[in-house]
Amino acid sequence: MSGEEAPTPQQQPEQEKKLDGPTPAGSEAPQESGSSPAAEEKPLSFRSLVLTGYGGYDKVKLQVKTQKQPQLEAGEVLVRVKACGLNFAELLGRQGLYELLPAPPVVMGMEGSGVIEAVGEDVKDRKVGDRVIVLKRSGMWQEVVVVSANLTFPMPEQMSFEEGAAIPINYLTAYMMLFEMANVRPGKSVLIHMAAGGVGFAVTQLCQTVPDVTVFGTASAPKHETIAQGGVTHPIDYRTKDYVEEIRKISPKGVDIVLDPLGGSDTQKGFSLLKPLGMLIVFGAANCVTGQKKNLLAMAKTWYNQLSLTTLKLMQSNKAVCGFHLGYITDQLISKTMFKLLELYGQGKIKPRIDSCYHFEEVTDAFRRMHERQNIGKVILLPEAKKEEEKPKSSPELVENVDKTEAAVNVKEEETTEEVKAED
Amino acid sequence: MSGEEAPTPQQQPEQEKKLDGPTPAGSEAPQESGSSPAAEEKPLSFRSLVLTGYGGYDKVKLQVKTQKQPQLEAGEVLVRVKACGLNFAELLGRQGLYELLPAPPVVMGMEGSGVIEAVGEDVKDRKVGDRVIVLKRSGMWQEVVVVSANLTFPMPEQMSFEEGAAIPINYLTAYMMLFEMANVRPGKSVLIHMAAGGVGFAVTQLCQTVPDVTVFGTASAPKHETIAQGGVTHPIDYRTKDYVEEIRKISPKGVDIVLDPLGGSDTQKGFSLLKPLGMLIVFGAANCVTGQKKNLLAMAKTWYNQLSLTTLKLMQSNKAVCGFHLGYITDQLISKTMFKLLELYGQGKIKPRIDSCYHFEEVTDAFRRMHERQNIGKVILLPEAKKEEEKPKSSPELVENVDKTEAAVNVKEEETTEEVKAED
Repeated sequence: MSGEEAPTPQQQPEQEKKLDGPTPAGSEAPQESGSSPAAEEKPLSFRSLVLTGYGGYDKVKLQVKTQKQPQLEAGEVLVRVKACGLNFAELLGRQGLYELLPAPPVVMGMEGSGVIEAVGEDVKDRKVGDRVIVLKRSGMWQEVVVVSANLTFPMPEQMSFEEGAAIPINYLTAYMMLFEMANVRPGKSVLIHMAAGGVGFAVTQLCQTVPDVTVFGTASAPKHETIAQGGVTHPIDYRTKDYVEEIRKISPKGVDIVLDPLGGSDTQKGFSLLKPLGMLIVFGAANCVTGQKKNLLAMAKTWYNQLSLTTLKLMQSNKAVCGFHLGYITDQLISKTMFKLLELYGQGKIKPRIDSCYHFEEVTDAFRRMHERQNIGKVILLPEAKKEEEKPKSSPELVENVDKTEAAVNVKEEETTEEVKAED
Repeated sequence: MSGEEAPTPQQQPEQEKKLDGPTPAGSEAPQESGSSPAAEEKPLSFRSLVLTGYGGYDKVKLQVKTQKQPQLEAGEVLVRVKACGLNFAELLGRQGLYELLPAPPVVMGMEGSGVIEAVGEDVKDRKVGDRVIVLKRSGMWQEVVVVSANLTFPMPEQMSFEEGAAIPINYLTAYMMLFEMANVRPGKSVLIHMAAGGVGFAVTQLCQTVPDVTVFGTASAPKHETIAQGGVTHPIDYRTKDYVEEIRKISPKGVDIVLDPLGGSDTQKGFSLLKPLGMLIVFGAANCVTGQKKNLLAMAKTWYNQLSLTTLKLMQSNKAVCGFHLGYITDQLISKTMFKLLELYGQGKIKPRIDSCYHFEEVTDAFRRMHERQNIGKVILLPEAKKEEEKPKSSPELVENVDKTEAAVNVKEEETTEEVKAED
């Protein structure tokens, strides 16, 4: 481990101490917990994807941590994670561009699904064995997590773990933008960029819960058939055509709602496309991400081109400009909206499209798939170790090394963190 | 008439030629119109409030114009105006601060009510004698107007002319802000400034069509009882208290929707008061108006303090900022919304509060009442000459002069425009 990448206990944020990162040497043994299972004395060993520093794909390391059973506080549950979501926020986070992510070393991941293994005091409506969706500000990319029971949501029987992990971030974002900020009603039109991404599918499906909504969606041509089947009325190939022109051809007056995850000059284009009384919602800055590592030029360009407005300009155009960032939304509102989404899932109105699943040891491939915009739908990470017989999706050397190292780690008895990395 | 104030035919915008301003010398006699009444040969004499130049109250002159009967084009109607609305836009317009108003000499006024006296070809759903509400981009402060039938709306039987004139601008503005831009729903809270003004009452009444909406309204203390009766949940005296503090005391998290007709630093305060997912709608710049005449310092201050935003700031706060300006809304949307408002009136859900009515010759008093924020509800202008026996509301000299001059004008036979002004 290089010094830069080594997990430094002092840097760990408060909420991360329990399971994320290594247990500090000399830390007290956990107290006996009334509701924890009998395994208190047996050390807990689990796999974790740790961001060890800002940069390229190689900064995310698979580590196996071994530590004493965590003590749950009142209202908390211990969840064995079965699937996690990968989001664009983690591409930004890895490059040091996601301001809400604690400093490395840190476990990324904001959503997942799994099974409750232990419950703390005062947890009334969750029990051991419950299949739940889990939300967390960070730290979900780990085999076991401790979270507030309030941010777990019971999974319907027919929902797979992959689906459960695919819902929270994308659908909360889509739902709140469409129905809390904007006011999608019959006859309205919506433009969504990256329509084949997780939020893209969520937006498209949620638009279909309202009659007569037209969806314009940008995506590369090979994805058009799939997004059209998903409900995009007008797929537009932003790689070969000027999407502003294409939309004007179909709807000369423009659109009512523009959902913009790109930032920079695309925000300006989106604003220009708005009909009077229309609304632009900026919810990302994907244009900042070009290569694997932080690109100062792309950032500067995105920053420089970002829409800057005075209220006078807004008045003269009768337009609305909003920003949306799920990271700044309260737990209470998130919780309320999650229950609405579960209701819609139960009614068959939403169903996440899973693009691909990668085991933790294949995280680089998962990042690359999203970075290169190859995904159609959600990219999922699986904490469970890849089985020997499975055909490796990522480079054979990496997988081999991971397996070897893991075997070594599993025999350790001490509380420890072992980084699983490819030997050069 | 001074040169500055004299109506110059060349300056008259296209749409004003027919009735507003003097008829240019040597203009052709109107052609016979199939549907015009028999009075074609009899000249038409009418009173008109003309803005003769930018400045104080004295720039608005009562003129009596005499000209040949106007020829109606297809789709137009001739309306004898019974009542007109005074809006803040006219205070701005008089000072040269309302960019949509054609250059003086020009007749101001954007709304009114009256009776149809003639209909042009292709007018199917209006007939002579219909009582109608009328909308016009400018030129309504006149005894007779020619307008597109599409911008006239049949008045319910129980609606007075004063009410009819009080509805369009204030209620269209309120309705579109609350239900087209924002999305007022049960449980939401709304802050409206100048709650005792025309838009203030409209907003308050429309909020009451949605269950459980909290209305914060700023107004001076003497108006609190009336606005509370009208439905304002929390009247706040902005003159003696910091309204931001007062609102935080009642609702520490702030409000969901801020409707801001003030501009400048109040816009910034409004933004700070928004809850996450909240929306600020700026729809005016009343703070620009201080004295009777354009105040460069107030303008500069309002301009300098206006909210200027980047999308990044909006994302981090999860807020929406909008501008609303009825002047830039299409006739089609205006028309659609007017019919909704008439339906609400029919259901007894909205009813404009008339503060006061002034005859054209008392226009200075009307301006002053609004300028000094004395009005509680709508200020109405009446084209009809004030009767001798009526106790004058404005200064006796002015009324006297007006009457004298008018008498003189009424005997003229030529097409002419006579300015009715106080002799100094």
